[in-house]
Amino acid sequence: MSKTMMAVVKAEAAPGAEVREVKVPDYGPAEVLVKVKVASICGTDLHIYEWDRWAQNRIHPPLIPGHEFCGEVVAYGKEVTSVREGDFVSAEMHVACGKCLLCRTGEAHICRNVKIIGVDADGAFADYVVIPETNICKLDPDIPQEYASILDPLGNAVHTVLAGEIAARTVAVTGCGPIGLFSIAVARAVGAAQVFAIEINEYRRKVAHQMKADFVLDPAKDDVVANVKEQTGGLGVDVVLEMAGHPDSIRTAFDIVRSGGRISLLCLTSRPVSLNFSEDIIFKGITVQGINGRRMFQTWFQMTALLKAGKLDLHPVITDRIALADFPKAMGRLKTGEASKILLYPNGSR
Amino acid sequence: MSKTMMAVVKAEAAPGAEVREVKVPDYGPAEVLVKVKVASICGTDLHIYEWDRWAQNRIHPPLIPGHEFCGEVVAYGKEVTSVREGDFVSAEMHVACGKCLLCRTGEAHICRNVKIIGVDADGAFADYVVIPETNICKLDPDIPQEYASILDPLGNAVHTVLAGEIAARTVAVTGCGPIGLFSIAVARAVGAAQVFAIEINEYRRKVAHQMKADFVLDPAKDDVVANVKEQTGGLGVDVVLEMAGHPDSIRTAFDIVRSGGRISLLCLTSRPVSLNFSEDIIFKGITVQGINGRRMFQTWFQMTALLKAGKLDLHPVITDRIALADFPKAMGRLKTGEASKILLYPNGSR
Amino acid sequence: MSKTMMAVVKAEAAPGAEVREVKVPDYGPAEVLVKVKVASICGTDLHIYEWDRWAQNRIHPPLIPGHEFCGEVVAYGKEVTSVREGDFVSAEMHVACGKCLLCRTGEAHICRNVKIIGVDADGAFADYVVIPETNICKLDPDIPQEYASILDPLGNAVHTVLAGEIAARTVAVTGCGPIGLFSIAVARAVGAAQVFAIEINEYRRKVAHQMKADFVLDPAKDDVVANVKEQTGGLGVDVVLEMAGHPDSIRTAFDIVRSGGRISLLCLTSRPVSLNFSEDIIFKGITVQGINGRRMFQTWFQMTALLKAGKLDLHPVITDRIALADFPKAMGRLKTGEASKILLYPNGSR
Amino acid sequence: MSKTMMAVVKAEAAPGAEVREVKVPDYGPAEVLVKVKVASICGTDLHIYEWDRWAQNRIHPPLIPGHEFCGEVVAYGKEVTSVREGDFVSAEMHVACGKCLLCRTGEAHICRNVKIIGVDADGAFADYVVIPETNICKLDPDIPQEYASILDPLGNAVHTVLAGEIAARTVAVTGCGPIGLFSIAVARAVGAAQVFAIEINEYRRKVAHQMKADFVLDPAKDDVVANVKEQTGGLGVDVVLEMAGHPDSIRTAFDIVRSGGRISLLCLTSRPVSLNFSEDIIFKGITVQGINGRRMFQTWFQMTALLKAGKLDLHPVITDRIALADFPKAMGRLKTGEASKILLYPNGSR
Repeated sequence: MSKTMMAVVKAEAAPGAEVREVKVPDYGPAEVLVKVKVASICGTDLHIYEWDRWAQNRIHPPLIPGHEFCGEVVAYGKEVTSVREGDFVSAEMHVACGKCLLCRTGEAHICRNVKIIGVDADGAFADYVVIPETNICKLDPDIPQEYASILDPLGNAVHTVLAGEIAARTVAVTGCGPIGLFSIAVARAVGAAQVFAIEINEYRRKVAHQMKADFVLDPAKDDVVANVKEQTGGLGVDVVLEMAGHPDSIRTAFDIVRSGGRISLLCLTSRPVSLNFSEDIIFKGITVQGINGRRMFQTWFQMTALLKAGKLDLHPVITDRIALADFPKAMGRLKTGEASKILLYPNGSR
Repeated sequence: MSKTMMAVVKAEAAPGAEVREVKVPDYGPAEVLVKVKVASICGTDLHIYEWDRWAQNRIHPPLIPGHEFCGEVVAYGKEVTSVREGDFVSAEMHVACGKCLLCRTGEAHICRNVKIIGVDADGAFADYVVIPETNICKLDPDIPQEYASILDPLGNAVHTVLAGEIAARTVAVTGCGPIGLFSIAVARAVGAAQVFAIEINEYRRKVAHQMKADFVLDPAKDDVVANVKEQTGGLGVDVVLEMAGHPDSIRTAFDIVRSGGRISLLCLTSRPVSLNFSEDIIFKGITVQGINGRRMFQTWFQMTALLKAGKLDLHPVITDRIALADFPKAMGRLKTGEASKILLYPNGSR
Repeated sequence: MSKTMMAVVKAEAAPGAEVREVKVPDYGPAEVLVKVKVASICGTDLHIYEWDRWAQNRIHPPLIPGHEFCGEVVAYGKEVTSVREGDFVSAEMHVACGKCLLCRTGEAHICRNVKIIGVDADGAFADYVVIPETNICKLDPDIPQEYASILDPLGNAVHTVLAGEIAARTVAVTGCGPIGLFSIAVARAVGAAQVFAIEINEYRRKVAHQMKADFVLDPAKDDVVANVKEQTGGLGVDVVLEMAGHPDSIRTAFDIVRSGGRISLLCLTSRPVSLNFSEDIIFKGITVQGINGRRMFQTWFQMTALLKAGKLDLHPVITDRIALADFPKAMGRLKTGEASKILLYPNGSR
Repeated sequence: MSKTMMAVVKAEAAPGAEVREVKVPDYGPAEVLVKVKVASICGTDLHIYEWDRWAQNRIHPPLIPGHEFCGEVVAYGKEVTSVREGDFVSAEMHVACGKCLLCRTGEAHICRNVKIIGVDADGAFADYVVIPETNICKLDPDIPQEYASILDPLGNAVHTVLAGEIAARTVAVTGCGPIGLFSIAVARAVGAAQVFAIEINEYRRKVAHQMKADFVLDPAKDDVVANVKEQTGGLGVDVVLEMAGHPDSIRTAFDIVRSGGRISLLCLTSRPVSLNFSEDIIFKGITVQGINGRRMFQTWFQMTALLKAGKLDLHPVITDRIALADFPKAMGRLKTGEASKILLYPNGSR
C-alpha cells in the first residue's frame, strides 16, 4: 500500500482548499483504516470552503474535510473485532464521548463532548480515512455505493421522520434541500398517507416531484395553509418535518400542523423566531422536537434495512458525480443552487 | 322506501340459516339506517351457521348475522349530526359501553360490556342495517367499495401491525388467513424491511406470494427457524404477528422472535400452550401483546388513510363475489379452504 | 326540593356579578343534577368578574360562572346509568363534541368544538349545577371534599407532570400559582428526584416551601441557571413544567432544561416569545409540549387514585374558605395576590 | 498497597468455597481497581456455593464470586478518564459486548455475548475487584454504603417497576424475596396508588409489611383473586411484577391483571407454564414483558437519583451484616429462609 494519498486539504484559515498529496493516516489499536470509494458533499463543506463565520470559529486548519462516505476496510488495529479486511463500510462521523449521562442513556447523538470527523479531525475527502471501531457501520454489499456514501444526511432524514408516529399520517416537509428530499422518500417508504413538499426554489420543487411528494407547494405563489387545510379536512397535517431553517418556513410549520400534531425541527437557523406560545403550541397541544444527528445506532440499522430492502429511490437527489481531484469544481456546482447531492470519487475508485 | 327487506336470518338454535323477507329495522334518535352495498363473511359467521359450541353459548336466535359491510346512509335519528343522507359509510360493530374505565381511558376495544352487531344484535347480511352514530365511520368516496366492506378484519391487521414499532423492522406473519394476508400488505405499506409468511396450507401460501411477502415458508417442509435466522443475521425477526391460533404456530412465534422483539397475538386458540418462561420470554427480554378488535377509532383513521392513499393492494384476498340470496353457497365455498374473503351483494347493490 | 336556588350571576356585559335567587336548572335525559358542596375559584373567574378583553369576547351574559366543584347527585335523566342519587361527584367541565377526529382518537382535551360549563354555559357557583353524564366523574367517598372541589386545576398539574417520564427525574416548576404549586406535590408523589420551584412572588415562594419543593428560587435575586446547573451536575433539569406564562419564565425554561429534556407548557401567555431555535431546541434535542386541560379521562383516574391513596398534601394551597353569598369578597381576596385557592360554600353545604 | 488480599474462592468443581489469601488482581489500561467496602449476597452465590446443576454448567473454578458491591477507586489504567482515586463507586457487573445489534441499539442488558463479573470472571467477594471503566458507576457520597452495595438487585426492581407506566396505578408484586421487597419500595416511591404483596412465606410477608405494602396476601390462606378484585373495583390490578418464578405465582399474575394491564416477569422459573392464550392474553389485551438485568445505564441513573433523594427506605430488607471471612456462615443464614439481604464486610472495611 502506498504511504501517501490524495486529499482535499483546508490548509489555511482562509477561503478555498487544495487537492494535494499527504501521508496516509496512522490508525490506533481500536481504529479502522478505510479506503474511500465514494464521498459526498454537505453544505457544511461549503461553509468550510468559503470560510464563513461559523467555519472561522470551529475549524482549525490544516484539515481534511468530508464526513459523508463509504469505502472498504483495508487495515485495522489489534483490538478491532467487528470488521475484516474487504468489508464494505460507512461510519457515523459524530464521535461521542461514551462516558457522559447522555451517552450512557442512549442519547449519544446529543453528547456535548462530540467530535466530528471531517470537522474536528481529518475526514473522508481523501483516498483513506481513519475511523474508530465504535463508529464503523458495516454495510450489506447489496446497498449501492452511491447510497452508502450519503448515509449521514439520509440518517438525518430517517431520524427526523421516525422521531414519532408516521404510518398513515399526513406529513409536510418544509424545505427541499437534500435532507428534505430524502425525508419525502423515507416518509413514503414508512407509510405516510400524504406528503406535502413546501419549497421556494423551482429546481428543488422539480426534484420534490421526482421524489413523489403528493403535493408540491411554492410558498411564494401558493396559499400553503389553505392548500394543506383543504387536503386534510380542515385540520392541518399530523406531522411537519422542518428542513429549511428559515423563519418563514418555521412560521409555516406552526400554521399547518394540526392540533395534537408534531413538528420535528432538523434544520438550523441563525435568526431568532418569534412565537405566540398560547396559540401556536399550548391550545393546539402540539409537540415540538429538536432533532440532531442520527441515533446511535438505531438510525443506522433502520436506514440500512430500508436500503437493503429496496424501499428508497434516492436517485433524483444525486445530481453530480465528480472526481475528488475536481473538488473546487464541485464547490462551484453546489453554489449554483441547481445541484442537490454531489458525489466525489477518489482516483481509481470507480 | 320499502318497509321490508331481504336478510340472512338465523331463525333457530340449529345449524343453517335462511334468506327471507323481514321488516326494515327501526332506528332511534342517535342511530343511522344504512343501505348495505357490500357485506363480507368472517369465520365467525361460519361458526354461527354451523351452530358450533361457541355459537350455541353466545347466539340468541333469531338473528341477522354479518359484521363486515359498507353502505350508504338513507336515514337517521334527530340527534345525529355527523353524517348526511347519501354518505358512504362503514361501522365499528363492537359497540362499547362508553362508561367503564377502559372506555374512558382510550381502551374501548377491550370494554368488557361490549355488544357486537351481527352477533349480539341484528347485523349487516341484509338490505339495511341500523348503527349507532357513535360507531359509524364515514368514508372517503375514493375508497373502493370492496375494500370498504372488509374494514373490520383489515382493522384487526392494522391494529396488530401498528401495535409497536414496525418501520424498517423484520416481520413474520404466522398464519395466512385473511387477516394474516392483510397484515402482509399493511406491514409492507408501513415500511417493514422484510416480511416472512408462515403457513401450512398451500393455497394460502400462494396468496401470501401474491401479497408480496418476501419469504413464504411451509412449516411442514421448511425449517422455519433456520430460514428466519439465516435471513436475519442469526437474530430472528423483530416482530411476530401471530395469526394462526394454533399451538405449533405460537411455539414458532417464540422460536423466531429476536431478543428484545415483540410478539403480537391476534388469533384466538382453544388449546392451552405451554411455555418455558425463562427461555422464551425473560432471557430474551421480549414483549408479548394480546390484540383485540380495532382501536376506536385510531385504527379506523389509520386504515382509511392508507386505503385513500392507495397504499394497500388487497385484491388477492378477495376471492369470491356472491349474491346475498346465495348465502348458503357462500358458506360452502368458505368450507373448501380455498376461499379467502367472500363478498356478499344484496339485491340491486352492484 | 326547592324550585329556586342561590347563584353567582354575571348579569350584564360589564364588570361585577351578583349573588341572587334563580330557578334550579332543568336536566335532560342524559344529564345529571348535582347539589354543589364546594366550588372553587380560578383566575378565569376573575377575568369574567372584571370583564377584561378576553371575557368581553368570550362570555355571553347572563351566565353563572364556576367550573371547579364537587357535589352530590340529586337527580338525573332517564338515560343515565353510571351514577345514583347520593353519589359524590365532580365533573370535567370541558364538554368535547365527541365526534371530531381528535375526540375519536383520544385527544378530546384539544377538541376544537369544546364548550366549557361555567364559561359557555351555566356553571357551579350555585346551589345546583347540571352536568352531562359523559362528563360526570364519580368519586370515592374517601377523597376529601376540599380536594374534590379543585380537581380541574389539579388535573392540569397531573396532566402536565405525567405528559412524559418523571420518575427519578429532576424537575423545575416555573411559576407557583395554584397549578404550579399542585405540580410540586404531584411531581414529588410520582418520584421526581428533585423539584426546583421558581417564583418571583414572595408569598408564593413561601407556599412552595410548604409544598416541599427541594429548592425554591427567586429569579429577581437568585441566579436561577447557575443554581440549577450546580445541583444537576452542570446538565440542567430533565423536565421543566412552565406554569407562569411570562416571557421571562419561558426564557428560563429553555435555559435550564438539559439536552434531551422536555419542557411542558401549560400556562398561557399573551405576549410573543422569541427563540433561537438552533441553540434552544435543535442542538439540545429537546421536546416542547403544549398542554391543555385534562386527558379525558385518564387524568381523572390518575388524580383520584393519587388522592384516594393519600399521596398528595394540598392543604397549603387552600388559603380561603368563603360563603358563596360573599362571592365579591372572594374576588377581593384573589386580587391581593396573597390567596392561592379560594373555596366557596353554598348555603348549608358545610 | 499490599500485593495480596483475602477473597472467597470457589477453588474446585464441588460444593463449598474457602476464604483465603490471593494476589490482588492486575488491571488493564481501560480498567479500574476498586477496594471493596461492602459486598452483598445473591441467590446466585448460593447456587455457586452449593454447586447445583446450573453452577456445574456455568462456572469454571477457580472463581471469586460476588457481583453486588460498592467500594472506593484505588487505581486505574491510563485510558480511564471518568473516575479518580477515592471515588465512591459500584458497577454494572454484566459486561456487554458493545458491538452487537442489541448493544448498539440501547439493549445491552440483553446482549447475548454478555460476561458477568462474579460468575464468568473474578468478582467482588474480596478486598479488591477489577472493573472495566465502561461498567463503573460513580456514586454520590450521600448514598449510604449499605444501599450502594445492593444496586444490582435494586436495579432489577427499578428496571421492572419502570418498564411501563406506574404512577397512579395499582400494582401487585408476586413474590417477596429481596427484589420483590425492593419493588414494593420503588413502586411506592414513584407513585403507585396501591401495592399488593403476595407471598407464601410468613417471614417475607412480615418484611413486606415493613416495606409498607398496602395489602399483604398469603396465597395459601387468602383468596388472592377475590381480594385484589374487591380492592380494584372488580377490575384487577394495572400492573403485576412477577418476582417469584413459581408456576402458581405466574398463574396468579394472569388471574389478577386487569384488561389492558401489564405483567412484567423478572424471576426465572425452571418449570413450564401452561396458558390459555385466548383468555389470559388476547381477550384481555394485556402486555407481558420479559425483564432482564438493568438498563445500561438508565436504570443506574434512576436508582441513584431515587437513593440520593432519600426516596427509598430499604432497611427492612437488610437482615445480616457478616465479615467476609465468615462467608460460610452467611451461606448458612441464607439457607434458613429467614434472611433477606446479607451484607459482607472485608476486613477493615467497616
